[in-house]
Amino acid sequence: MRLDVVTIFPEYLEPLNVSLVGKARARGQLDVRVHDLREWTHDRHNTVDDTPYGGGPGMVMKTEPWGECLDDVLADGYEGGAQAPALVVPTPSGRPFTQELAVELSQRPWLVFTPARYEGIDRRVIDEYATRMPVYEVSIGDYVLAGGEAAVLVVTEAVARLLPGVLGNAASHQDDSFAPGAMANLLEGPVYTKPPAWRGREIPEVLLSGHHGKIARWRRDEALRRTVRNRPDLVERTDPKAFDKKDREMLSILGWRPGPDGRFGPTPGVVEE
Amino acid sequence: MRLDVVTIFPEYLEPLNVSLVGKARARGQLDVRVHDLREWTHDRHNTVDDTPYGGGPGMVMKTEPWGECLDDVLADGYEGGAQAPALVVPTPSGRPFTQELAVELSQRPWLVFTPARYEGIDRRVIDEYATRMPVYEVSIGDYVLAGGEAAVLVVTEAVARLLPGVLGNAASHQDDSFAPGAMANLLEGPVYTKPPAWRGREIPEVLLSGHHGKIARWRRDEALRRTVRNRPDLVERTDPKAFDKKDREMLSILGWRPGPDGRFGPTPGVVEE
Repeated sequence: MRLDVVTIFPEYLEPLNVSLVGKARARGQLDVRVHDLREWTHDRHNTVDDTPYGGGPGMVMKTEPWGECLDDVLADGYEGGAQAPALVVPTPSGRPFTQELAVELSQRPWLVFTPARYEGIDRRVIDEYATRMPVYEVSIGDYVLAGGEAAVLVVTEAVARLLPGVLGNAASHQDDSFAPGAMANLLEGPVYTKPPAWRGREIPEVLLSGHHGKIARWRRDEALRRTVRNRPDLVERTDPKAFDKKDREMLSILGWRPGPDGRFGPTPGVVEE
Repeated sequence: MRLDVVTIFPEYLEPLNVSLVGKARARGQLDVRVHDLREWTHDRHNTVDDTPYGGGPGMVMKTEPWGECLDDVLADGYEGGAQAPALVVPTPSGRPFTQELAVELSQRPWLVFTPARYEGIDRRVIDEYATRMPVYEVSIGDYVLAGGEAAVLVVTEAVARLLPGVLGNAASHQDDSFAPGAMANLLEGPVYTKPPAWRGREIPEVLLSGHHGKIARWRRDEALRRTVRNRPDLVERTDPKAFDKKDREMLSILGWRPGPDGRFGPTPGVVEE
């Protein structure tokens, strides 16, 4: 997979040399190219921004440097159809970046990231390239960053770990929070390793039982407990068919009951909102 | 504000030297200290992980290096009460990190981040420090990363830009997507700057009108349009009192109608799901 990143803070992308992504690059699984947008400016101040039309605070990134830069980046290898690069535009106004979208992006051969600063990029840049390739405007969460670079690191890491051969142990995908399968829609519960006692704290006895069924049940109960506490929205939108008898018992202990449509929700007066 | 980060990939935190956070450090507004967890190991392989109790794929980070490291980090400056440091634990099992939580964290004097790798940190570490200080287990979004370091960059940036004096122009907070106020729950629409025409694309005429009322209305319509497309959940959970007559007209054009409880939702058959 090829990844291009166009930014005014190339140093911010240093983590792409480290850890999982760094190793994937060293093994030739990822071809990562970081471009300094200012190299495509022509004035001596290397200006990339100007005031917004219509007034208001902040600055807007100009069309010309983005257009010239993206033309050059794309000219080096552009193919249409299934091989077409996709533009990934991190913006708080985008659609939510999810694990599902990470899977979709991981199946493309080439991603071009355009992290913006200030109030964002002149809209015409996105409109122009959307005529030539798929554009993903994505938001990594409901918070405001100083720029899109941190989002590029997030998206890159989520995508890179899904590429064949990048993660050592393919089995560890399956237990991921947000992964499809038995644990879909449930957060992972607590984990423990040696020693069995630390500062007077012992590990849950069931984990020493060697009884696989009991351990799996305990893990699922802990996952339900944590999901109800931290992400009630995930439980509420789960198809109730995904809950077995023991799940229902646990949800009941946690004060959750099925509603008229069969979906589980907190019982008023029993669960603190 | 003081920020400590304990990690096995200190190089990943290089972006904390760049841009907004880097400048805040240079001005003395932020005291950032990055610690390599492996310095608190005692074997010649600098082991920080071991197999999980109860079986399963992946590795779990051990109690001892975390305990010894956090004790040392906290010993240097620990105070109780309002001055107590807070532990920020990035984990996909945490509660969602939001702009509201960024504001809450920005009001604390000291944050200690514990980004994990592998399947996470032995639960007893979190339980232990939770007896001494507030613990925030946070998830930056519904996707899986290779480790918590990218999340630390995200949280740090979202928090740092809210500190007094860190952003040059305080006014730009107010227009943020997810900021409270008139645009609460609406995504920002498109932005434009000079030149007025680029590659045959002209800016919307209203932005040249000089008519503040019309520009504000156009911006709000564009914000509604984008929010309905990318984040229908935000419109659905907005108190309908927040929509004025013109908002309701725009929502109607977009195929949205008020439901029995007054809240707006897509009209079945009119809006593609």
